Amino acid sequence: MGLALVEAEAARDLGEVPIGAVVVSAGGEVLARAGNRTLALADPTAHAEMLAIRAACASLRSERLPTCDLYVTLEPCAMCAAAISFARIRRLYFGPSDPKGGAVEHGPRFFTQATCHHAPEVYGGIGEAQSASLLKAFFAARR
Amino acid sequence: MGLALVEAEAARDLGEVPIGAVVVSAGGEVLARAGNRTLALADPTAHAEMLAIRAACASLRSERLPTCDLYVTLEPCAMCAAAISFARIRRLYFGPSDPKGGAVEHGPRFFTQATCHHAPEVYGGIGEAQSASLLKAFFAARR
Repeated sequence: MGLALVEAEAARDLGEVPIGAVVVSAGGEVLARAGNRTLALADPTAHAEMLAIRAACASLRSERLPTCDLYVTLEPCAMCAAAISFARIRRLYFGPSDPKGGAVEHGPRFFTQATCHHAPEVYGGIGEAQSASLLKAFFAARR
Repeated sequence: MGLALVEAEAARDLGEVPIGAVVVSAGGEVLARAGNRTLALADPTAHAEMLAIRAACASLRSERLPTCDLYVTLEPCAMCAAAISFARIRRLYFGPSDPKGGAVEHGPRFFTQATCHHAPEVYGGIGEAQSASLLKAFFAARR
């Protein structure tokens, strides 16, 4: 989660919402790391999780990552939760929960839906304080 | 929807699940068209809708498409529904509904969630018969 926080800080330094994600192999190798880039890439799908999953899939030349774990600094949204499911991610570790846009513990609670065909093991609240403080400072500065 | 069906057929010819999508501007110009490419790109996020939205955003250099409409040959999943919302798509036209994986009329019903901050106007069942027949033939041939 430390690396994901570094990615979140790098995103903030570019003016992006500070969220970072890392995909780690079963052996503990970092396969991909990414920060949010929706503005820089003019791409509404360029959330940290999406970029990290796509990069890990590209590096393994596989559309599935069944032995991999994802670390992300905020509760994933519905788009990212569904992508995590499609990629068959084994374990999801995330930071603070996100009542406004989260889709794991809030809103759709995607992994509990009958239309969700793979749910990872989920561990929330990891590195919560650091990530929450980054997000809070970012949005306070923009008001 | 005719163009989206052409993209769906082209996807099928590549061995991909036959789904196609088109983004059209307010003036009726086709900004982007794409078919499903999850296998070819080894990318679980490479659904037709995602590729079409990303391409339209790239062509307009904007992460939002508030005057654009999306045509897709099947009810979008949760990932694509959330991406449609983030992109601020104006109107969504889709083909058959998808009880197994759809997220507009099924499962999360994403656009009805409090965590969904933009919902397009939605028109389902457009070009339904042609798309359903493409999908049925594709899955029958794989069994």
